Amino acid sequence: MNTKQVLAAFKKQGARIETKARVALKAKSDFSLWYTPGVAVASSYLAKHPNEARNMSVKKNSVAVVSDGSAVLGLGNIGPYGALPVMEGKSLIFKSMAGVDAWPLVLDTQDPDEIVRIVKAIAPSFGGINLEDIAAPKCFDIEKRLVEELDIPVMHDDQHGTAIVVLAGLTNAAKVVKKNLKTLKVVISGAGAAGTAVAKLLLAAGVTDIILLDRTGTLFAGRLDMNEHKEALAKMTNPRKVTGGLAEAMSGADVFIGVSGKGLLKQEHVASMSPRSIVFAMANPEPEILPDEAKKAGAMVIATGRSDFPNQINNALVFPGIFRGALDKGVKKITEQTKLRAARGLAALVPHPSTTHIVPDLLDPRVVRAVARAVR
Amino acid sequence: MNTKQVLAAFKKQGARIETKARVALKAKSDFSLWYTPGVAVASSYLAKHPNEARNMSVKKNSVAVVSDGSAVLGLGNIGPYGALPVMEGKSLIFKSMAGVDAWPLVLDTQDPDEIVRIVKAIAPSFGGINLEDIAAPKCFDIEKRLVEELDIPVMHDDQHGTAIVVLAGLTNAAKVVKKNLKTLKVVISGAGAAGTAVAKLLLAAGVTDIILLDRTGTLFAGRLDMNEHKEALAKMTNPRKVTGGLAEAMSGADVFIGVSGKGLLKQEHVASMSPRSIVFAMANPEPEILPDEAKKAGAMVIATGRSDFPNQINNALVFPGIFRGALDKGVKKITEQTKLRAARGLAALVPHPSTTHIVPDLLDPRVVRAVARAVR
Repeated sequence: MNTKQVLAAFKKQGARIETKARVALKAKSDFSLWYTPGVAVASSYLAKHPNEARNMSVKKNSVAVVSDGSAVLGLGNIGPYGALPVMEGKSLIFKSMAGVDAWPLVLDTQDPDEIVRIVKAIAPSFGGINLEDIAAPKCFDIEKRLVEELDIPVMHDDQHGTAIVVLAGLTNAAKVVKKNLKTLKVVISGAGAAGTAVAKLLLAAGVTDIILLDRTGTLFAGRLDMNEHKEALAKMTNPRKVTGGLAEAMSGADVFIGVSGKGLLKQEHVASMSPRSIVFAMANPEPEILPDEAKKAGAMVIATGRSDFPNQINNALVFPGIFRGALDKGVKKITEQTKLRAARGLAALVPHPSTTHIVPDLLDPRVVRAVARAVR
Repeated sequence: MNTKQVLAAFKKQGARIETKARVALKAKSDFSLWYTPGVAVASSYLAKHPNEARNMSVKKNSVAVVSDGSAVLGLGNIGPYGALPVMEGKSLIFKSMAGVDAWPLVLDTQDPDEIVRIVKAIAPSFGGINLEDIAAPKCFDIEKRLVEELDIPVMHDDQHGTAIVVLAGLTNAAKVVKKNLKTLKVVISGAGAAGTAVAKLLLAAGVTDIILLDRTGTLFAGRLDMNEHKEALAKMTNPRKVTGGLAEAMSGADVFIGVSGKGLLKQEHVASMSPRSIVFAMANPEPEILPDEAKKAGAMVIATGRSDFPNQINNALVFPGIFRGALDKGVKKITEQTKLRAARGLAALVPHPSTTHIVPDLLDPRVVRAVARAVR
């Protein structure tokens, strides 16, 4: 489908999710029970026992998919209406894949304090909060405060969903190229929400040689123009203190992980990598390099975030299962251990990985169960 | 069902609404279209043409049912968790009766400025805002500001839904008792959200002799302890300048409209009304007087807000159709004329009213269409 056809399909479709009644309203007695006067019994009870809302209301199975539209896919700061189709698409995936009742909430504000106040205020109706497409560095503070202050699970999926699926894919890609995960030389292009979380989860998994790049170049301890988040990252990464840009970082690297922008990775960069290299070009909708080009330049395992190429390293493998597990088990925080377990569980679904099959298929019904099992 | 049985039913049921996918995600091509990369086309388009969200997203058919829990049914200020069952019940009714995709949003704040900010912030995802169970007098200002500042319909249903269904019921009750609507002597017990809106709509319909009462007694011009909203009301009503309490107001009245609290109306009050009197005892869940008692005391037409008595004067006859009409026709404001038309449309569904049948049944499929038709 070309752009015009896709747009026509969205216009023809209208909404992609709707609500559905779970009880019948066919007789007067149905109204008496589920509306008035019956509902007053439930209201009086929940006023006194608010924790019971998760057993007897929509809170039991619902997630708000919240975005301010400040960093939508690779499209940048395109605001709430630009974000709406993505949040609605995630809500669709939540229901279709994991039976989670998610509703898109795109916010007409980009102020971090306001976002925190709004999400806290709307939290009583929901069993979980999926933050999405909120720009770095404010996303870090917003997520941290909400995790601390709310008693339902809060996860910024651009960070942790991406990190989990990347670690799963990299675990299997390392097997394919017959290299040890922990000694891989990894370059991460993009030091925003996704790049930061990927770096941290790879470190937690034992990878030690990681170089992050932002628009200026490599992050290294002592670089002067960095915010506090990047300073902290620089201290944890780049042990060989590589300076310069992508060319310098990529020379001899085993792995490229792109969470940056369209076309940033050139064939000469790939050609300069060590033999049997791995390229995850995950910018959406347009990857850092097209799979064909990366292959021609010598990459052995190539992945993107898209559904129309092999090896789709996409958060959709992760977020439905994370919240399915959290809702089912009443889990209030998604910990580092949960993320590592989820990545291992995902990777294990492909016991014999190959160059074109390092992660399970999005349509594989085992995916949600495997990830949900990691949440406990 | 007794209270224990109702509570058990709610606990067994869990959520009463859920989400539902409107497109299939069964093949890779479904993901490519409805998620990535396809969704980027819709996102880029809506970023440039935000008004198109109402044609190609959940905004097309969705309503947020918003409450801060400050005045839930007749139960008072019981907070967001107390409000949740009511908002979820309304969302259920929205879908079951009018096909509207409504989601309950109960807010963990009761500050009017915050409520306005939050509702404005979440508005991009929704095609309409149903405010509910927000206490007077702050509800007036909150609704006014949101109506002015948002480009989607906003309606505080406790006010206008109630007013419309009361006017419809009273139109037919007047026929039953063979009195002229415009010359009825009307007493309204409760000068909060509902009482205020009922008084204003009855005035707009030509009723002139209306006495409102709050906890202190009748509202009259010059009473010293009133807020600005009640002062304005007092100037518009009580032309005979009746002072005192319910006993004084009810003497010789044709109509009692209760939007106040359980058991406030005594049989001696009803007995003091003019012959062929009308009693709408609409406090929820417990009416101002039970229908049997009102009948024994001489009332001719008796109505409550409940499903388990005849003549259910309930907003559920109104709000589904109002938002159905507004969403279908792209209407951004619910005007006074709309409300008068909706009341006339509802009343006309009962061409031959009787003492036990002054409004259409909640289950009558013509109700939503008749009310929706009034919105234009």
